[in-house]
Amino acid sequence: MSARPVITAYDWVPPFARGQVRDLRVRWALEEVGQPYDVTYLPQGAQKDAAHLAQQPYGQVPTYAEGDLTLFESGAIVLHVARTHGQLIPDDAAGAARASEWLFAALNTVEPPIGDHAMATIFEAHEPWSRARLPGVEARVRQRLAQTAARLGDREWYDGAFSVGDLMMIAVLRILRGKALLEEQPVLAAYVARGEARGAFQRALAGQLAGFTGAPPPGIDKWLARLAAAQGEQA
Amino acid sequence: MSARPVITAYDWVPPFARGQVRDLRVRWALEEVGQPYDVTYLPQGAQKDAAHLAQQPYGQVPTYAEGDLTLFESGAIVLHVARTHGQLIPDDAAGAARASEWLFAALNTVEPPIGDHAMATIFEAHEPWSRARLPGVEARVRQRLAQTAARLGDREWYDGAFSVGDLMMIAVLRILRGKALLEEQPVLAAYVARGEARGAFQRALAGQLAGFTGAPPPGIDKWLARLAAAQGEQA
Repeated sequence: MSARPVITAYDWVPPFARGQVRDLRVRWALEEVGQPYDVTYLPQGAQKDAAHLAQQPYGQVPTYAEGDLTLFESGAIVLHVARTHGQLIPDDAAGAARASEWLFAALNTVEPPIGDHAMATIFEAHEPWSRARLPGVEARVRQRLAQTAARLGDREWYDGAFSVGDLMMIAVLRILRGKALLEEQPVLAAYVARGEARGAFQRALAGQLAGFTGAPPPGIDKWLARLAAAQGEQA
Repeated sequence: MSARPVITAYDWVPPFARGQVRDLRVRWALEEVGQPYDVTYLPQGAQKDAAHLAQQPYGQVPTYAEGDLTLFESGAIVLHVARTHGQLIPDDAAGAARASEWLFAALNTVEPPIGDHAMATIFEAHEPWSRARLPGVEARVRQRLAQTAARLGDREWYDGAFSVGDLMMIAVLRILRGKALLEEQPVLAAYVARGEARGAFQRALAGQLAGFTGAPPPGIDKWLARLAAAQGEQA
């Protein structure tokens, strides 16, 4: 690779999102392959500006720029970093496909119910029906986690060496970090801990956390207080 | 490729799922690259058998077998088919990454809210709170569709020639086929129609529909009647 990549990240997010914003996934991949990178921080609201939307049509982070190439979607970026560096993914077509299947399983099979759980316990927590809906949401997460744990079994990583599949699965599972839903599956809690113990992960996490130096948006304290009250009622 | 691939599909699904089960995505990719394939049909319930779970840890379809290689996750399979055939994805790293970003956007950014809409209008339709929750679900789908349409604009496909990114985005968007949420975005409705007009798509769809020759599970008529009643109350 010739050009030093530049990624985008937020300069402020609420406490519950710190260590979870998706630029972490790209930072982690870059740290694993030893590729130095720069970060452009977006102040609150700038993700909806035309300049950013030109790079990220959904108004999210991260984006990734490397010379003339601009990419969005952390799954695509992580896969691109792995392939261009010839690391985190086997060279042969079959091995690459097997590592990719866990990347896709993380993003398209495991993350949707976990995202729904975050929706139910954060953005819909204040709704009058949120408490009634939560058991069904949790049941769907439990089913996916049990299946994910059953396949991992006593393996260290899913398919031989640590790969993009493990990186993404661990990044997705750790959305539930510290919650009973994850702790109920000791196999997965230990797998997440193994991933988090990697030096590359630690550097990526420290990098993201160090970047939250911006100003919170107006009114956020009130929103967070309402969230805390609603979560108390759900519990 | 040496071995003729074998995929798995269901031999019966309810009417609302016909033409939507995910083996369609793999069939479509195989038809686009001109690769003949065989299909193993699973009778109702067989997706939870140990033999199938050994190939698909989440008890879903499709799986893909090609000689010694077995894969699950339609995203990973479609990407593997494209890469091994050198079709549906550019050869160069930058072009491949750009096609992949739309594949990931379809699966990880656009499909989750559409999946949530299916959950709300099918599997949770009978819940007492489903009608109250639906407007928020629809708003999230609308936002994603508007952003998806804004980026497509007057392009035929997202990035030059028809690619795995278009294949997957169209497969995801057409979950909303015939619904106002999709029709509200004429750019996307026309994009879906362009994809569906392709010969390879037509052959894939006909193949899936022809495979539903199995017996429905006991009690499904009662469940479908309850669903129809609940959907009537939501409307």
